[in-house]
Amino acid sequence: MTPPTSGSRAAKAAQAPNAREVAYESGSGVAAGLAEHSACLRLDSEVRADSARRLRSVRGHVEGVLRMLEDPNVYCVDVLKQVSAVQGALRKVSDGVLRAHVRDHVATAAARGDTEHLVDELMEALKYKA
Amino acid sequence: MTPPTSGSRAAKAAQAPNAREVAYESGSGVAAGLAEHSACLRLDSEVRADSARRLRSVRGHVEGVLRMLEDPNVYCVDVLKQVSAVQGALRKVSDGVLRAHVRDHVATAAARGDTEHLVDELMEALKYKA
Amino acid sequence: MTPPTSGSRAAKAAQAPNAREVAYESGSGVAAGLAEHSACLRLDSEVRADSARRLRSVRGHVEGVLRMLEDPNVYCVDVLKQVSAVQGALRKVSDGVLRAHVRDHVATAAARGDTEHLVDELMEALKYKA
Amino acid sequence: MTPPTSGSRAAKAAQAPNAREVAYESGSGVAAGLAEHSACLRLDSEVRADSARRLRSVRGHVEGVLRMLEDPNVYCVDVLKQVSAVQGALRKVSDGVLRAHVRDHVATAAARGDTEHLVDELMEALKYKA
Repeated sequence: MTPPTSGSRAAKAAQAPNAREVAYESGSGVAAGLAEHSACLRLDSEVRADSARRLRSVRGHVEGVLRMLEDPNVYCVDVLKQVSAVQGALRKVSDGVLRAHVRDHVATAAARGDTEHLVDELMEALKYKA
Repeated sequence: MTPPTSGSRAAKAAQAPNAREVAYESGSGVAAGLAEHSACLRLDSEVRADSARRLRSVRGHVEGVLRMLEDPNVYCVDVLKQVSAVQGALRKVSDGVLRAHVRDHVATAAARGDTEHLVDELMEALKYKA
Repeated sequence: MTPPTSGSRAAKAAQAPNAREVAYESGSGVAAGLAEHSACLRLDSEVRADSARRLRSVRGHVEGVLRMLEDPNVYCVDVLKQVSAVQGALRKVSDGVLRAHVRDHVATAAARGDTEHLVDELMEALKYKA
Repeated sequence: MTPPTSGSRAAKAAQAPNAREVAYESGSGVAAGLAEHSACLRLDSEVRADSARRLRSVRGHVEGVLRMLEDPNVYCVDVLKQVSAVQGALRKVSDGVLRAHVRDHVATAAARGDTEHLVDELMEALKYKA
């Protein structure tokens, strides 16, 4: 998978800043719903900052493993341990984002009326939970 | 966990370049064994190069997620998917290293006489297999 | 862990059938809330029937592995594969229950006012997601 | 997946009790190798007994969850916790079998000359490690 550059839903919403007005004008309820969806289902800013902080540490850790791998005598199990530690750190990132998502978006789905969509999406995301 | 700088077994072995000679001179079979162990149980160089290549891609992917997180409208599930893709890439790194370790070191343990140690170590490493 | 006999929350609620009335009489809002909670957060009956059906199949599969283990020549990897298949079947049970829980209880948490409790509980349950 | 009845490698070997002699007579080295393989790569009998003991406990636990599911008021999270406990118990079974396999068969693979086959098989088994 290639690194995400501008493919996120929010990025797409940002590329169409007037989507909401247009949608209302055209009377398209579904389009209006999707545009509002993008606007309202955003990651909590504190969790966003915490995730970025953790990911910068993950990047440093990956660089540490890259330096290990320059050593021709590096032992397999030492590499396995470090990769496992990086995975643990990434798991903390996804746990934080997941918690914010459930609290802010899933717990309010019934009131908003998009339960089925959010449940499908959540189960899909959990499928890959490492 | 902090990034590994010089904590690997191989790094420690490198800091004691004369360990093998000293051990032979002192007649310490165990010390000699450990020094030789460090020397002989090294990660296959092709797998080492492949792991480094994959980890550089992981680093780029992490940087992509960091850019995503600069967007105040980023959607939780988009972050979860990207973190999950990074986890998948890391799993490929550990699968490659694990396979090389089993093939080159575990499969020869009985002949070398350190089966118990290698089995304990492997089970410990698999405990954290994500 | 010992098999659950009557330790479930619902079982406890069933042992105190008048909890709701008592709570209302005593004016204890919290106790009333907990009793109602037990009463309203029940597993969807269709998912309950499907889970039971799947678990009966899991039990049959476990009995099949027990028969395999009577053979003194059984090969480790054949046992590993069968245990892994049982794990897969159990994962389908928990995925079904989890989906029903998110759809019926988590998605309505904000309206009901117990978001924090449900989120904590869900994150705890996901921690052990195999 | 249906319960295993007689599909294991050992069962197949048992159905062809004279495979080794036939193979030697016909001069087929590969067939002889496979028949001997079935005969020598058997699960350690102590681990086999321990696995059976654990699986009987798993079966009892599954029956406990089936009883829970008879209660129309059962709470989803209580079911999730019990299923998760059963998965933990199954994981102990596979960890025990895996350890015996690595110690008795993988660690001796180089001497026996079937390293590639055992490594492929082990990596495949670990893919589904829950």
